[in-house]
Amino acid sequence: MPTNEELLLLDLWVSPFSTRVKIALAEKGLSYKTQEEDVLGGKSDLLLKSNPLYAKVPVLLHNGKPVVESTNIVYYIDETWPSPQLLPACSYGKSTARFWADFIDKKVFDAGRNIWQSKGEELEAAKNEFIDILKKLEGAMGDKDYFGGDKFGFVDVILIGLTTWFYAYEKYGGFKIEKECPKFAAWVNRCKERDSVAKNYIDPERTHEFVGLLRKMHGVE
Amino acid sequence: MPTNEELLLLDLWVSPFSTRVKIALAEKGLSYKTQEEDVLGGKSDLLLKSNPLYAKVPVLLHNGKPVVESTNIVYYIDETWPSPQLLPACSYGKSTARFWADFIDKKVFDAGRNIWQSKGEELEAAKNEFIDILKKLEGAMGDKDYFGGDKFGFVDVILIGLTTWFYAYEKYGGFKIEKECPKFAAWVNRCKERDSVAKNYIDPERTHEFVGLLRKMHGVE
Repeated sequence: MPTNEELLLLDLWVSPFSTRVKIALAEKGLSYKTQEEDVLGGKSDLLLKSNPLYAKVPVLLHNGKPVVESTNIVYYIDETWPSPQLLPACSYGKSTARFWADFIDKKVFDAGRNIWQSKGEELEAAKNEFIDILKKLEGAMGDKDYFGGDKFGFVDVILIGLTTWFYAYEKYGGFKIEKECPKFAAWVNRCKERDSVAKNYIDPERTHEFVGLLRKMHGVE
Repeated sequence: MPTNEELLLLDLWVSPFSTRVKIALAEKGLSYKTQEEDVLGGKSDLLLKSNPLYAKVPVLLHNGKPVVESTNIVYYIDETWPSPQLLPACSYGKSTARFWADFIDKKVFDAGRNIWQSKGEELEAAKNEFIDILKKLEGAMGDKDYFGGDKFGFVDVILIGLTTWFYAYEKYGGFKIEKECPKFAAWVNRCKERDSVAKNYIDPERTHEFVGLLRKMHGVE
């Protein structure tokens, strides 16, 4: 990256969506600054100005110009600094990657929230729904090491950030991903061996504690 | 397109999402066959096989290989047959287009459904929410003729298909887009002057009638 370029990430330590972006930046070897938002306080003026529609992290400011929504930011990073490429080269491969990224965005985080917000029968249904989603993702991976094949790529970046909250889902849902979806658990471990993932992976004990606070705020316990 | 290539669209005449795809195909001058799904009968084996996760039209089969989800299909068409390009050339322009396409996908159709599924106070709130979304879209367009500038492009394709249902929303919501959002209405008329849009635009009287059937099915009237 030319030295006159500047990358600033509006961040929140516990955001699984920010984690995606940090992993993508690390894959490209890009250096950047972060500005931490206050999780309980008000949102910064820069966040409100950069993302007026959603007012959410992450926002990536590239030479002051904001790019918002985490999946969109990962696309932007991949298109602006194409080497090493995260998306497949061919248009059919790209369309498959986009399909699964979209499936993940539509399903995984919400299904996880349904677990930590529920009790009793509702919790049972939420847990089964979550495991069903992971099994569909295992199906998409097939016998490959990563979603795109033998290389860590776009869909892996989109999904692995979200797994930083999975320990909390296991704890509040009373299940073990390793037991229910061993192939999925093996993929998580494989990803965590990469530097880009290892150094940006949020400590699962800390996300568990944070989700515990969310449960109290939502009156679940 | 080489003559040995084959495009088959799994279609439903009333689908605003299929309409997007047909407009994108027309913009590229591509010829294709369609297979109409039965709206009340069962789904075709080809649809279930091509889109096992969602079992929804549209699906575009390119030489037999399925691409699913309408926005994803428009991307695929734009990447596979890049001329004339629908997405902007630069990565920042692409990220802006993707942001608005995603906003449209998250908001517009669901907000429209809230109108035709509601009555009384709920209807009033649904109508205001819908108009608020259109005003945000007007803000994104600014003083430009189209979302990307002076040329009909990606975001226009994504949005214009959905407007084929707007007459029904106006009728059941008791409002006029031309009065509430004149700039938006002018953009719709501008788009409808294009061949690609004109020849694929679903007759608003027919979508109105179809939405009337949906209301009966959902017990709204």
